[in-house]
Amino acid sequence: MNGEKPKTVTLVEVGPRDGFQFEKTVVPTERKLDVIARLAAAGLRRIQVTSFVHPAKVPQMADAETLVARLPKEGPVAYSALVLNERGLARALACGIANVEISLSASDAHSRKNAGMPHAEALTRGLTMIDRAVSAGVHVRASIQCAFGCVEEGAIPAERIAETIRRFIDHGAHELSLADTTGMGSPPAIRNILDTVRPLSGGLPLALHLHDTRGLGLVNLMAAMDCGVAIFDTSLAGMGGCPFVSGAAGNIATEDTAYLLSSLGIDTGVDVDRVGAISRELETFFNTTFSGRIHRLSAHFPL
Amino acid sequence: MNGEKPKTVTLVEVGPRDGFQFEKTVVPTERKLDVIARLAAAGLRRIQVTSFVHPAKVPQMADAETLVARLPKEGPVAYSALVLNERGLARALACGIANVEISLSASDAHSRKNAGMPHAEALTRGLTMIDRAVSAGVHVRASIQCAFGCVEEGAIPAERIAETIRRFIDHGAHELSLADTTGMGSPPAIRNILDTVRPLSGGLPLALHLHDTRGLGLVNLMAAMDCGVAIFDTSLAGMGGCPFVSGAAGNIATEDTAYLLSSLGIDTGVDVDRVGAISRELETFFNTTFSGRIHRLSAHFPL
Repeated sequence: MNGEKPKTVTLVEVGPRDGFQFEKTVVPTERKLDVIARLAAAGLRRIQVTSFVHPAKVPQMADAETLVARLPKEGPVAYSALVLNERGLARALACGIANVEISLSASDAHSRKNAGMPHAEALTRGLTMIDRAVSAGVHVRASIQCAFGCVEEGAIPAERIAETIRRFIDHGAHELSLADTTGMGSPPAIRNILDTVRPLSGGLPLALHLHDTRGLGLVNLMAAMDCGVAIFDTSLAGMGGCPFVSGAAGNIATEDTAYLLSSLGIDTGVDVDRVGAISRELETFFNTTFSGRIHRLSAHFPL
Repeated sequence: MNGEKPKTVTLVEVGPRDGFQFEKTVVPTERKLDVIARLAAAGLRRIQVTSFVHPAKVPQMADAETLVARLPKEGPVAYSALVLNERGLARALACGIANVEISLSASDAHSRKNAGMPHAEALTRGLTMIDRAVSAGVHVRASIQCAFGCVEEGAIPAERIAETIRRFIDHGAHELSLADTTGMGSPPAIRNILDTVRPLSGGLPLALHLHDTRGLGLVNLMAAMDCGVAIFDTSLAGMGGCPFVSGAAGNIATEDTAYLLSSLGIDTGVDVDRVGAISRELETFFNTTFSGRIHRLSAHFPL
């Protein structure tokens, strides 16, 4: 790629899903709706609101149907839900959400832990799910977890990512996403995978989901923008984390990302201070300090 | 600059000064010496160990003389102390430390708060201090606080930074340093100031001291390396902060920085996991969570 950064970048807010599912305290549906509405008012145009997972396993997401039913039916915001298996997809389609993310892991070890099967099997299942979702007429984002490394398997061969992407495209996915689930991505790893994947994506939007577990989240975002990526998942206050690492940082923070992009003259449409205000209220609600930075300031003093 | 990054980078550990002075709990001298010795064993070759400030104002640094007296007299590590006024410099010279950092603010508002006088006056005083320190035969780093912005004054004119640097050089400083005290630096701001300052520095080493208050610390480091900077202050676990902002992040973390640089093939000589072990002990000692990332992992799984 030519290293020229995009003029506008889309931030996909995943805090209500990736963030809320990580906290022990279950957020009441009413409060989730309030947070989601305020994120929309702060300029977020894509919000991942829930995950259709087993309510006994992830009680934080047990209200998925109720929540989706109560989302605004009109307006500029695209709401999405994560689905990890057929049952989840069936629930998502039944309740009429317009956007689903179908996600599987590139790492065999991680896939066994999270999905109970190795990558190849998860891919076969995922492709069937994509077929079904596409037929149902919803917008399908197909995503790959651990795309930039796995704590057990190390670096994932670029060819495995490439082959998965090819299959996603063959089956009609509308958007592709690569997740740095472990935060093991680094600028060279990002470039390596993106140099392989970008030429395959045939004009489909390609998103990155970056965790800041090792502090490299925004550096990786910069590297990815140089490779032409212009869609990034972020979570307010940098909520989220890794269930296997106590205290690990979460996603790249919505506020910090929007602030960085704004300093580079890249438009996101996101109001940093309004998101920060929601984040600070959630810190009080959860009685914790999230790993993002700017939300800790009552005003961010843009230059 | 050509955007080519340096092959090796020097990290100046400032945790024992910038980090310890920010925590309410005073670290006993014995423990400071232990931390400093272990930082040296982890590969740090420059460590800022204390600040000669009024003991009633900053009780955390009240043991400056005792600490310096007990540092190793030989070995590969350069120990430095920060001095902010004549009295501090006199104390530093009297106790025989070989490296001093003489620091003043580019912002009038910040300088009034921290030094009781506007920038121009602080500069005059600082130059006298540089003269005296150079005559005394110690290594003098002259540094500018708020070089990339001030919460009260906004952006600082590059010309003010340039003029300060010229005077520092005229008076014989051996090293120059620019501090992003407020964490308001962004890649364009970093490039703007460095494009002005680098041509003036006449071969003198130029260091950057970056705070991660707004999450842009490592992104700014990347931008600074593209401009040829190869010396950075870091603090273990990202200790430190801003007395005016509760919960604000501290310096860029030694471990995170060393990890990032290692992923780029840039040598720092720093053992990430050994520094991380010290950081985790200090989190227990201070009963807090510092804002760095990698120290929270018991091993950092390099790729």
